[in-house]
Amino acid sequence: MGQNIRDRLLSLLIQYQPQFVSGEEISRELGCSRAAVWKHIEELRQEGYEIEARPRSGYRLLYRPDRVAPEEIAYHLHTKKFGREIRYQEVVASTQILAHQWAREGAVEGSLVVAEEQTEGRGRLGRSWYSPPRSGVWMSLILRPPILLTEASHLTLLASLGVKQGIERVTGLPIQIKWPNDLLVHGKKICGILTELRGEQDQIHYVILGMGINVNTPEKNWPEELRAIATSLAIELGGPVHRASLIAAILEELEEVYDHYLQSGFSKIKAKWEQSSGIIGKQIVARTPQGVITGIAEHLNDQGALIIRTDRGLVSVHSADVSLK
Amino acid sequence: MGQNIRDRLLSLLIQYQPQFVSGEEISRELGCSRAAVWKHIEELRQEGYEIEARPRSGYRLLYRPDRVAPEEIAYHLHTKKFGREIRYQEVVASTQILAHQWAREGAVEGSLVVAEEQTEGRGRLGRSWYSPPRSGVWMSLILRPPILLTEASHLTLLASLGVKQGIERVTGLPIQIKWPNDLLVHGKKICGILTELRGEQDQIHYVILGMGINVNTPEKNWPEELRAIATSLAIELGGPVHRASLIAAILEELEEVYDHYLQSGFSKIKAKWEQSSGIIGKQIVARTPQGVITGIAEHLNDQGALIIRTDRGLVSVHSADVSLK
Repeated sequence: MGQNIRDRLLSLLIQYQPQFVSGEEISRELGCSRAAVWKHIEELRQEGYEIEARPRSGYRLLYRPDRVAPEEIAYHLHTKKFGREIRYQEVVASTQILAHQWAREGAVEGSLVVAEEQTEGRGRLGRSWYSPPRSGVWMSLILRPPILLTEASHLTLLASLGVKQGIERVTGLPIQIKWPNDLLVHGKKICGILTELRGEQDQIHYVILGMGINVNTPEKNWPEELRAIATSLAIELGGPVHRASLIAAILEELEEVYDHYLQSGFSKIKAKWEQSSGIIGKQIVARTPQGVITGIAEHLNDQGALIIRTDRGLVSVHSADVSLK
Repeated sequence: MGQNIRDRLLSLLIQYQPQFVSGEEISRELGCSRAAVWKHIEELRQEGYEIEARPRSGYRLLYRPDRVAPEEIAYHLHTKKFGREIRYQEVVASTQILAHQWAREGAVEGSLVVAEEQTEGRGRLGRSWYSPPRSGVWMSLILRPPILLTEASHLTLLASLGVKQGIERVTGLPIQIKWPNDLLVHGKKICGILTELRGEQDQIHYVILGMGINVNTPEKNWPEELRAIATSLAIELGGPVHRASLIAAILEELEEVYDHYLQSGFSKIKAKWEQSSGIIGKQIVARTPQGVITGIAEHLNDQGALIIRTDRGLVSVHSADVSLK
């Protein structure tokens, strides 16, 4: 309940910004005493919000810290299920670990784990993911789709489409999808998606969509070896992006794509993915566990595998690092 | 180390049974004092072993309790990896739960969880599995196959083949496989196999093969509703089966089938499965989440789906309850 009042107080301050809103109006809107309002204002200040209090004028918001806390996300969010339950922590080893744990404990579909910093952020195949504090979006979404294990690769493709649309909506930057799970801006990595799941043949118990997005990382902060291949939205835009709004936009787009998939199946998503991809129709090199495959990326099959036309005919690839030749 | 000495002591006693083995020989073989031998004898007695001690003759084993403890399994086991690490408990909620936990903590391939009793034994799709104390084999095997998520259904089929061969070797009973995960004797259920896994698109983190086998359950102990559809090996054989030997035989057959699969792929296993199945070539009814399909079970496809010839052509089924028509 305290959380709710603070959320509503913050919403009110944001709504009036840069104007003052009177203490009287706040206490009327929130249905609480002037003393309680003051207590919540103090709490917000402790979290980094700068709020001016002026006698006879009331309160006004001067500065919102760039936090991805539940109340910041909730303020921007218009979804039915995605992100309606949030577990937020300043620092985690990895949001994936927390999400698995929560899912096992029975988290509902759409539950979200989000953190300001990951000390052991992970990418695909156990690779590490650079997740410095307050500079990116590090989050994990819990899904419970009524699909088979053999259809699970649809979810990675669906997720890359949803995240792409969310980033484009907020930044206007052109995002390309690199099969199977990376998003690129101008050829450099901006986002990785990690789909993990637990299930049996007939039933998926849960899926965790892990997303790492480089939002406000300044170029100088990148580890040397990443500068050539990775970038951040702020570098490409020339200015910072509000992370909580970005999260809200991504959750909205994801929910829409996901609902569409559950209702109408994979075919439309596949077609849209192929259009959005930076590789379909192009000469590519796919490094697979079985060796290197060179050819033209033709299309996806119904399972989400990438079909490559090589000198020796069509080859389907389920797992690879793909790059343009 | 204490565990090892006790295992070796038990092996020695079993080897000499029904003869005596002298305390002097035991202490020489085990490289420990006569007092230490006595201590281990006492431990075994506390676990239900009856051991006679006679001055000047030594010790002899009179009775081995029917336990599925690691030392009992180890005595019969000739595998490279399967069952070489065992976690054993008298009572568990479900061996699957423990196995998932152990796998997350890094259990090596072939690690086995086994219990005398399950209070919340589970079957496919969250159904319950009747697992009364000391009357069955309730175990979960941890695997780490280098395969894709889309190939995971191979493992259920492979497991049903391995378990069938293990049971047949020990009992001589004719076992039929019912797609996808049940074993039958004379048309009644003797074993269920539950394949659960955690992974991502490119990589399986681990698979848990859960097996529930009705070994020595007397008919009168079955819940009423199960008597018509389930049976135990003891009922069919007319006498009890030594559970630890059965576990060892199953692990050996499983390991062989699994190694063969990793080296040579799914095709031979598929062919063998089709031969062993009670349904291929027969008129069946498959109850799927999407509705009831009637037709002739033709074969398995490369993914392990069941292909059924219906009035409207071939249909592939990934998930169903199948019965003969």
